[in-house]
Amino acid sequence: MNPLKVALLGCGTVGGAVLRLVAEQAADLTARVGRPVEIAGVAVRRPDRHPEVPAHLLTTDALGLVTRDDVDLVVEVIGGIEPARSLILAAIEAGKSVVSANKALLAEDGVALHAAAAKAGVDLYYEASVAGAIPLLRPLRESLAGDQIRRVVGIVNGTTNYILSRMAETGAGFSEALAEATELGYAEADPTADVDGFDAAAKGAILASLAFHSAVTAADVHREGIASVTATDVARAAEIGCTVKLLAICERVPGEEGESVAVRVHPAMIPTSHPLAAVGGAFNAVFVEAEAAGQLMFYGQGAGGEPTASAVLGDLVAVARNRVAGAAGAGPSAYADLPARPIAETPTRYHVSLDVADVPGVLATVATEFARHEVSIATVRQDGHGDAATLVIVTHSAPDAALSATIAALREVPAVRGVTSVLRVEGLS
Amino acid sequence: MNPLKVALLGCGTVGGAVLRLVAEQAADLTARVGRPVEIAGVAVRRPDRHPEVPAHLLTTDALGLVTRDDVDLVVEVIGGIEPARSLILAAIEAGKSVVSANKALLAEDGVALHAAAAKAGVDLYYEASVAGAIPLLRPLRESLAGDQIRRVVGIVNGTTNYILSRMAETGAGFSEALAEATELGYAEADPTADVDGFDAAAKGAILASLAFHSAVTAADVHREGIASVTATDVARAAEIGCTVKLLAICERVPGEEGESVAVRVHPAMIPTSHPLAAVGGAFNAVFVEAEAAGQLMFYGQGAGGEPTASAVLGDLVAVARNRVAGAAGAGPSAYADLPARPIAETPTRYHVSLDVADVPGVLATVATEFARHEVSIATVRQDGHGDAATLVIVTHSAPDAALSATIAALREVPAVRGVTSVLRVEGLS
Repeated sequence: MNPLKVALLGCGTVGGAVLRLVAEQAADLTARVGRPVEIAGVAVRRPDRHPEVPAHLLTTDALGLVTRDDVDLVVEVIGGIEPARSLILAAIEAGKSVVSANKALLAEDGVALHAAAAKAGVDLYYEASVAGAIPLLRPLRESLAGDQIRRVVGIVNGTTNYILSRMAETGAGFSEALAEATELGYAEADPTADVDGFDAAAKGAILASLAFHSAVTAADVHREGIASVTATDVARAAEIGCTVKLLAICERVPGEEGESVAVRVHPAMIPTSHPLAAVGGAFNAVFVEAEAAGQLMFYGQGAGGEPTASAVLGDLVAVARNRVAGAAGAGPSAYADLPARPIAETPTRYHVSLDVADVPGVLATVATEFARHEVSIATVRQDGHGDAATLVIVTHSAPDAALSATIAALREVPAVRGVTSVLRVEGLS
Repeated sequence: MNPLKVALLGCGTVGGAVLRLVAEQAADLTARVGRPVEIAGVAVRRPDRHPEVPAHLLTTDALGLVTRDDVDLVVEVIGGIEPARSLILAAIEAGKSVVSANKALLAEDGVALHAAAAKAGVDLYYEASVAGAIPLLRPLRESLAGDQIRRVVGIVNGTTNYILSRMAETGAGFSEALAEATELGYAEADPTADVDGFDAAAKGAILASLAFHSAVTAADVHREGIASVTATDVARAAEIGCTVKLLAICERVPGEEGESVAVRVHPAMIPTSHPLAAVGGAFNAVFVEAEAAGQLMFYGQGAGGEPTASAVLGDLVAVARNRVAGAAGAGPSAYADLPARPIAETPTRYHVSLDVADVPGVLATVATEFARHEVSIATVRQDGHGDAATLVIVTHSAPDAALSATIAALREVPAVRGVTSVLRVEGLS
């Protein structure tokens, strides 16, 4: 049988694992696809750094490789926007189906890439771009295709989850936990993409696009990282039976002018009884609420060469089968075309901890500020100590702008000596 | 646009929910499928019992309905072997794609049904047959198609999980917890299918077939129910940091004559730190271990009209899209054709609790029985009380036959006054 030929773009941790798995599972892949699957070439920048790859496969001419007549499928595991975008577009225009693990590119330019794939009648799959090995995009796209998804809440970045888990376990501050994560290899030398939430925001955009059949890009995602999370925040969370997680939250929000989509990435307190609270260390998990299906959770390894390669190979088998069948699969649709709602108008809940002077009427003063901004208080706890006291307040749901305006106003109240912790709260009933 | 016409077989809890969702989501389904989806008829036994269904759709002639020229797709939610099998085969032979929620039928006759579908060039999908709303079969079939699945361990029966959860919470015995479950509607009037593990065994057969690309039927599954689980078993489990769950375990087992597949359903102790241990009440969860992907877990509602209907509709969208595209999807393959291994030869681990006379040498006597059967002991705990003592033993892995022979032999040892608890242990490192 004529083999299907695959061009591999990039040969780092993930690419190397893809190469190895394709070789190891050759017989199984043949059985599953219906034809043998063969690596036709591997494009890298520095061929001399890849002694593990047969020399005749290596090339620096990525564009030449993806447009080669004998290449059927392209696997892109370079990452980043360029040259990945140009190469994928060139591959698509040359009639090749593409499997990518590139969250940044899909979150920025998914619409254009999908349009190109649809026009060329080829597949563009990217299960590996979100939550590594966890089968997630396919269930969202296909298994839940007959349902209405209301919310998707994910722990989709292992580095920040490791740091927050360690802060909770040891009482350490952010810097200390980050240093440990870097030393153990859980954080990169430049941790910005993870710590500042860029990685999670890209994944949030991809999840929201598929869940809500709407074009959501990374620019639509409100993004806050974990660098400002303090040991106090983590301790306060524990006091109210919560734990701090960096969440990517994608919601369908009703409004006067119809529904919209709100996507945000920020640290939040969630109850320890919530299924996501137990997701520790470098694991990922995504919680989905759908109209008919109810609550679902998907859990597994979110990163690493082998787990990510597993997701790439699942897609590779799918696009290869489609190629053998002579038809591309159904692409995602954006028919619902819901607009993105800015964070200011998105309903959220806050936990606020204040140091206040222990004088009569301070609670009334504070409560008045909340009321003035039309923010309703759910619970308040007051702990006196000497001439000072701590107020711990959890609000009901209100537009985020009203909540942040309340905090700004509280900072100006004379009886408030300090705002010691502010974090959003998710998953409380 | 010409609508795709669906014949619905059965209109109980699930069928009613399918009917409602198809109507409610008509616009979304049209957008997702590319053509409107319309119910062409509903076959029921007693039309007078379905005032909620438009009268012109109701028919008692199920065979006539599924073979009608204008019907494109068939949804079967009758359950049971006959008449479901004959109707599905008739539909397939008439060129209709079929979506089914029928675990008993798929577990008994999946091979023949798939062969018929392949021959006719139509789809046969059945996501709803295992773990209700949880997207599971599609991830196993497709997302993990490039990986090697080693183990699938599932809590796939909500009734037994509810009963065992209540036994753990209240200290109640099995009969008492079953009575409560029946009263609350979590158990059916005749709970045999759930309590004796038939339901879980059917699901285990379906999971193993897909995970290991081999034909596994319900008859290949070793099955033990939960009726013999005692309050003592549950208490003993807690003492060693475990909880008792009814598990469906599907494993790839190496052997001298090559690999085989071992599928078994039985109550087992699992550590409370295992992700499956926290799955309480009527929820389902399935834990998957794959070579490259590592550990994955899928969690959600395993039963109920709406959740099951969500899975049915996901399949309906998939087969409808395939119909619009003019091609059937890839069916599951059984190319690996691994033989089923009997429970006697399957490696398992036991927890055994013995009441023994507190005389010198009793531990040596007991240990000798284990050694005689080549069963290695992992841990042993001895609690003395008066002239008696309790021995709690956890074994290492050994062929199940050796373990059960050891237990039988221990019952004959004079110093052993009673074997108070025997349960398999899973998930210990």
